[in-house]
Amino acid sequence: MSYFANIPTIKFEGKGSDNALAFKHYNPSEVVFGKTMEEHLRYAVAYWHTFTADGTDPFGAGTAVRAWDSLSALDKAKARVEANFEFMDKLNLPYYCFHDRDIAPEGATLQETNKNLDIIVAMLKDGQKASGRKLLWNTQNMFTNPRFVHGAGTAVNADVYAYAAAQVKKGLEVGKELGAENYVFWGGREGYETLLNTDMKLELDNLARLYHMSIAYAKEIGFDAQFLIEPKPKEPTKHQYDFDAATTISFLQNYGLKEHFKLNLEANHATLAGHTFEHEIRVAAINGMLGSLDANQGDMLLGWDTDEFPTDLYSTTLTMYEVLKAGGLGRGGVNFDAKVRRGSFEVEDLFLAHIAGMDSFAWGLKAAAKLIENKVLDSVVEDRYASFKSGIGADIVSGKATLASLEQYALQNNPIVNKSGRQERLRLLLSEVIFSV
Amino acid sequence: MSYFANIPTIKFEGKGSDNALAFKHYNPSEVVFGKTMEEHLRYAVAYWHTFTADGTDPFGAGTAVRAWDSLSALDKAKARVEANFEFMDKLNLPYYCFHDRDIAPEGATLQETNKNLDIIVAMLKDGQKASGRKLLWNTQNMFTNPRFVHGAGTAVNADVYAYAAAQVKKGLEVGKELGAENYVFWGGREGYETLLNTDMKLELDNLARLYHMSIAYAKEIGFDAQFLIEPKPKEPTKHQYDFDAATTISFLQNYGLKEHFKLNLEANHATLAGHTFEHEIRVAAINGMLGSLDANQGDMLLGWDTDEFPTDLYSTTLTMYEVLKAGGLGRGGVNFDAKVRRGSFEVEDLFLAHIAGMDSFAWGLKAAAKLIENKVLDSVVEDRYASFKSGIGADIVSGKATLASLEQYALQNNPIVNKSGRQERLRLLLSEVIFSV
Amino acid sequence: MSYFANIPTIKFEGKGSDNALAFKHYNPSEVVFGKTMEEHLRYAVAYWHTFTADGTDPFGAGTAVRAWDSLSALDKAKARVEANFEFMDKLNLPYYCFHDRDIAPEGATLQETNKNLDIIVAMLKDGQKASGRKLLWNTQNMFTNPRFVHGAGTAVNADVYAYAAAQVKKGLEVGKELGAENYVFWGGREGYETLLNTDMKLELDNLARLYHMSIAYAKEIGFDAQFLIEPKPKEPTKHQYDFDAATTISFLQNYGLKEHFKLNLEANHATLAGHTFEHEIRVAAINGMLGSLDANQGDMLLGWDTDEFPTDLYSTTLTMYEVLKAGGLGRGGVNFDAKVRRGSFEVEDLFLAHIAGMDSFAWGLKAAAKLIENKVLDSVVEDRYASFKSGIGADIVSGKATLASLEQYALQNNPIVNKSGRQERLRLLLSEVIFSV
Amino acid sequence: MSYFANIPTIKFEGKGSDNALAFKHYNPSEVVFGKTMEEHLRYAVAYWHTFTADGTDPFGAGTAVRAWDSLSALDKAKARVEANFEFMDKLNLPYYCFHDRDIAPEGATLQETNKNLDIIVAMLKDGQKASGRKLLWNTQNMFTNPRFVHGAGTAVNADVYAYAAAQVKKGLEVGKELGAENYVFWGGREGYETLLNTDMKLELDNLARLYHMSIAYAKEIGFDAQFLIEPKPKEPTKHQYDFDAATTISFLQNYGLKEHFKLNLEANHATLAGHTFEHEIRVAAINGMLGSLDANQGDMLLGWDTDEFPTDLYSTTLTMYEVLKAGGLGRGGVNFDAKVRRGSFEVEDLFLAHIAGMDSFAWGLKAAAKLIENKVLDSVVEDRYASFKSGIGADIVSGKATLASLEQYALQNNPIVNKSGRQERLRLLLSEVIFSV
Repeated sequence: MSYFANIPTIKFEGKGSDNALAFKHYNPSEVVFGKTMEEHLRYAVAYWHTFTADGTDPFGAGTAVRAWDSLSALDKAKARVEANFEFMDKLNLPYYCFHDRDIAPEGATLQETNKNLDIIVAMLKDGQKASGRKLLWNTQNMFTNPRFVHGAGTAVNADVYAYAAAQVKKGLEVGKELGAENYVFWGGREGYETLLNTDMKLELDNLARLYHMSIAYAKEIGFDAQFLIEPKPKEPTKHQYDFDAATTISFLQNYGLKEHFKLNLEANHATLAGHTFEHEIRVAAINGMLGSLDANQGDMLLGWDTDEFPTDLYSTTLTMYEVLKAGGLGRGGVNFDAKVRRGSFEVEDLFLAHIAGMDSFAWGLKAAAKLIENKVLDSVVEDRYASFKSGIGADIVSGKATLASLEQYALQNNPIVNKSGRQERLRLLLSEVIFSV
Repeated sequence: MSYFANIPTIKFEGKGSDNALAFKHYNPSEVVFGKTMEEHLRYAVAYWHTFTADGTDPFGAGTAVRAWDSLSALDKAKARVEANFEFMDKLNLPYYCFHDRDIAPEGATLQETNKNLDIIVAMLKDGQKASGRKLLWNTQNMFTNPRFVHGAGTAVNADVYAYAAAQVKKGLEVGKELGAENYVFWGGREGYETLLNTDMKLELDNLARLYHMSIAYAKEIGFDAQFLIEPKPKEPTKHQYDFDAATTISFLQNYGLKEHFKLNLEANHATLAGHTFEHEIRVAAINGMLGSLDANQGDMLLGWDTDEFPTDLYSTTLTMYEVLKAGGLGRGGVNFDAKVRRGSFEVEDLFLAHIAGMDSFAWGLKAAAKLIENKVLDSVVEDRYASFKSGIGADIVSGKATLASLEQYALQNNPIVNKSGRQERLRLLLSEVIFSV
Repeated sequence: MSYFANIPTIKFEGKGSDNALAFKHYNPSEVVFGKTMEEHLRYAVAYWHTFTADGTDPFGAGTAVRAWDSLSALDKAKARVEANFEFMDKLNLPYYCFHDRDIAPEGATLQETNKNLDIIVAMLKDGQKASGRKLLWNTQNMFTNPRFVHGAGTAVNADVYAYAAAQVKKGLEVGKELGAENYVFWGGREGYETLLNTDMKLELDNLARLYHMSIAYAKEIGFDAQFLIEPKPKEPTKHQYDFDAATTISFLQNYGLKEHFKLNLEANHATLAGHTFEHEIRVAAINGMLGSLDANQGDMLLGWDTDEFPTDLYSTTLTMYEVLKAGGLGRGGVNFDAKVRRGSFEVEDLFLAHIAGMDSFAWGLKAAAKLIENKVLDSVVEDRYASFKSGIGADIVSGKATLASLEQYALQNNPIVNKSGRQERLRLLLSEVIFSV
Repeated sequence: MSYFANIPTIKFEGKGSDNALAFKHYNPSEVVFGKTMEEHLRYAVAYWHTFTADGTDPFGAGTAVRAWDSLSALDKAKARVEANFEFMDKLNLPYYCFHDRDIAPEGATLQETNKNLDIIVAMLKDGQKASGRKLLWNTQNMFTNPRFVHGAGTAVNADVYAYAAAQVKKGLEVGKELGAENYVFWGGREGYETLLNTDMKLELDNLARLYHMSIAYAKEIGFDAQFLIEPKPKEPTKHQYDFDAATTISFLQNYGLKEHFKLNLEANHATLAGHTFEHEIRVAAINGMLGSLDANQGDMLLGWDTDEFPTDLYSTTLTMYEVLKAGGLGRGGVNFDAKVRRGSFEVEDLFLAHIAGMDSFAWGLKAAAKLIENKVLDSVVEDRYASFKSGIGADIVSGKATLASLEQYALQNNPIVNKSGRQERLRLLLSEVIFSV
């Protein structure tokens, strides 16, 4: 059956089209900066926001109107699988992502839960085969069920930790079964509510132990997905251990895990941590840790994760600029970890929102390519740091300089002349480039 | 001469005293938790806020009324030295801290600047000898002078970097001369305004190079102070590289610097980064990186570093709790990196504010000691994580468990029973303990 | 039956008691500042947080373990009524508060919904009679049901507006039936998500119309409760129209409604708007608009309404200080609009949390009384503004002065001498007073 | 003499020009939406940021390199007057704005200060005559001088209040002399640091008295400028009384001042208060209080007023959309209350920054005109609220409805059908419109 019968397949109609259900910027096969858009962007639909969620917020019940609303739990799960592939087809989305509990309902026991999961995984495997669509990553939801109230990999209760481990084990098996290109850990309850009752050291040690076991098990079963950790600073716990890129890298370094992981960065998580998205990507990139992107945007005047579809072209451009400069996303992709607003409750909104996100990121990609090709920023940066290419600057960079040699230089080098950073000019240039692609 | 002639020596009069110029909680020789208060707290006055600053803010000129206001630059510097020791004597402060430019004016050349510095350093050395007061730490100001507009150790201009290196060299020499127990790096301009014109990788590489040179030079001259880095997330630059404890640790790890440094943590910097002060101390402590404290507090409804004197007893208690649990401050101390409000412009306010801070921290120390001695929180924590002491929990902690063994356990362990975290109860207990010391 | 059989009646045992299930500060009949504590504080339990909510958060399912968990909707509603009165009895709470949908389930039609409501209202009336407990206020929930997705009194759809009006009508009737002392309007969906699709003027006009109709209807049925509006700046909508006290007052003034309303102020709403709770109370008080308090506290490092039980004694003291200075709460009260943390899921936590809040507010009341009785702050304020009591200051206050007369004065009055505001001193004094009651 | 000899007169070269010193969007004489761009935008230079400020920040000394750096105070003031007119000529800026203390140095007495002011005002008058440039508004700086440490119109000291009144008197005279179109009150110190020592009621009463005196005096001297109040929530005081548009309107209503004032709204002040700029403009507009704009933008990840030049086209477009919908700015204008970054210290940056701002606002104006002309949003809004045009909706709007009539309607109107708000679609449309002008 069709879940989106009234929605046409979304095609590229180009700038100037006034068809709301068409791409105006995203043209999968168009070559930009040496690759097709599809190869650069590797778009994914987030199963949970698009097929599982219903618009519930802390002050209100779900508003979404979906074809599967009245079905029982397992039938609903099956309907969503079908809807997933139909949706991907209509939007030409190459990838999808899910948490285990998005796709199948929990049963009364772990055995039952895993059985439900197996049923759906089999359907997904068939669907992938039939459609050619692929799994960008899967992950385990260890935050919704009340058992994780005090953590999962950082649980205060060893029974919960064991359960979490079992869930990860199954998640890795599912990832292997479906050929996931990456495997994500987002620690929804890996944090604390108050230090008054928290043993932070033990919790972090245990979390690292879980990661080491997971690496071992993935190796054992021959699952070679890239492991990713997704930083977030707060929400749901008051303090999440994987606060931001730098914190997560520090943790991985401390526990000998750095070489086994990359980062799955999310725009709204970045801003909640006080950073721009491009900052987080740069930090990951210079540490060799850029894995994949969760594309969305927050409301900068609100203090929680609003997970809005990304439509700010400044942000999509600077995001893709960092990605291109870092050499691309590799096995990662651009996953729309974004939800339609509670007020956008119609099925059509799911398409309009994805079009908005896909077009905005495609637009950003083209603008980023132009920034690089025209050396708009590179020329500025080269000029700005030119003094490190020769003379005393080269001595500093090569490691030849000492405090004494630098003092000697400084004592006779008076006055020092600096040059303007030209921030205002660069900002206008950025608008010009974005709006000229 | 006396700069504070109207102010008596501040003595301990105990709870119930209504003398505003007396300690009611800080009694240097009182033994708490195995050491005297003085040994625990190692209070320091911050030279810049107390002797150099004048109450200027971005919207207004200085308001402070000080005895040295009308003196010329070098005479003013000398007067401040005298005032510093008189102030420390009257408040019984064992330590002081300074940036190079706090204590002596800059000259037209680096040579002249260093000469000014030498004059004042000689006075300080004499003052230390005469008074028995000591230098907790010194540091270099590489942020006020316009030459540092685009960074110092992360300068975009090699000439500026060389100047910064010369300044650090002199700072290390000054530290050695004055027997500083620690040497601090706070990167006031080590960050960026916009990524559009910034080479983050080169800047961080260069910063690490400066630290390596500094370590080498300190060794060369036999200066064995503990090196400290002070994290701050923003202000003055839009993004400061040493965002918080975890970020700084990550940087130090990346560049093979971790063993050479500890952290100088500041309360208001913690909250600007989205953390409580106790969080930052805990992170440092479990990484073996707790160095020293910059004691102050921010206004949680304002978005900048207000550097208020610390008077919130919840915060001073939890701060000292973390310190005691971490085994104390070692060579570090409690430096009042705090400024009297612009409206507290009288000399008397300098004393009242320090009394407020010293009494509040002494109070916090006593409350923290009681929390530990009565096992108020330890008993909660022990009980909460008890499942990791035996059985499956012990297997996890010992590294014996695998995903498979944990799955096997989980499959037969149904249901899982959790216990309440009792946060509300703990909060009231905390008030009770603070109240009862 | 008993829902809290294991919990004893909470009694006053006084300071030093180590019984977690006892009051140490709240002694209902103790006279403070001329009235009993019970008369000052007029504590209320919030039906929704304590009997209806289950610990659900945006990332997780409910954790609360309650005796009525397995009952069907209407039976659950009835059980909660019984639990409400048992709870109030055990804690000696004189008041309770509810939204219509907290107490009874919605039916398929408004008729059915109202019938359900009638059944429960009858039970509540009996319960009130039997127990002597009273209704501080009731209100209508016009935010949970999906029909209110785009507003209720500010709906974009007249059908929704009509429904909302019908709901308010019923709410007023229920309030009258149960003798509510106040009637609250909190506009959970009265705001907007984006200005791009919003007619702010029409929405505000309509909201004012709803209030005018409500006043007329209350008069018609002889319901003389005090009408209250509860400000909140954001959440659930991106912008809530009743942002804060000043904004709400401005709205009421604009539409000729000011005389008919007072404000129901909430601590966590205040801080989300960038204000302290005491600020909001002062603003209300000087406008003659102080109605009632929703007592809770937020986490100042988080950007959403955490609704924690109030345990910060600085805040409870300053809150009660403003209340006492304003002449008390009148028909209002202190309603614990606070929820136990998701991790505090046991029934015992409901009691421990209320004890924490009640003791903290009682403590704050006593500290506030002492601040006033000892003229700790009044003496400061009187001295600080003394210049407005005579001479040119008196001319200003009496309206006699003009720009010209003041210029004439200023031209000959040189220099001006100001006095310190002594903020640091006052902060320490505040701690001293709080911890000496 | 020329202060900007190396800078050409900035001309319109249109899109595609690669001349950094040319307008690409701002074409003063181009007609958009019925008027020339110049008539719509009424651009003004902010004297303080552009001629008086030097790049000082709380952590560093000034960096700006200006031709008048070495002059003495009064000569510097004169040079700035010349520079002002040269600058306005080169950028074709019709207006300028100033605080009294921006343009002339303070003397030892108010008499001397006023004399300095007179000298400069005479030069400005000549300059205006010679150039045809005009004064958009002037205001008084009652926040920089230490005498205002505890307020000006809300001073705790009547002597300070008298001084402030004298300063306002002179300001009004200067405004009249120079033909200012508006007169602004921004209360830099009209707020409080702590409620502990503050009589909010007296302070607000006194502030209102100052406004009443000012109205009377302006009338007396025949100065018919539009009076404006500029809201700001915090900085420099912890709480500024004129927090935002709604708060300011409430204050004006309370004191019978509303008809005498409009608002001067600033983008960065809006965001510090938790609002978008367009929100504040809408609030002002529907209250008939839109006066003038201070155009800038903040960094949404920083908590203070960064006063950056406005370059975000989403914001300039939505700002101008609100302005056009409100019928334009009347006697107000678009004043660039924006400062070049500390790192943009060259004279050329002053031009580049203004070009960035002027082009971005011109671009926004064109996009806004297109939004309106194509009914992009109006069609959405009309459709969304259509139900209020007839039937029950019309009854509501006309005032005919009652709670009873609405209940009767609601009881038979089941189910209610809502429509999606289409936010994601509107966001992409906005990008499309901005892009296509």
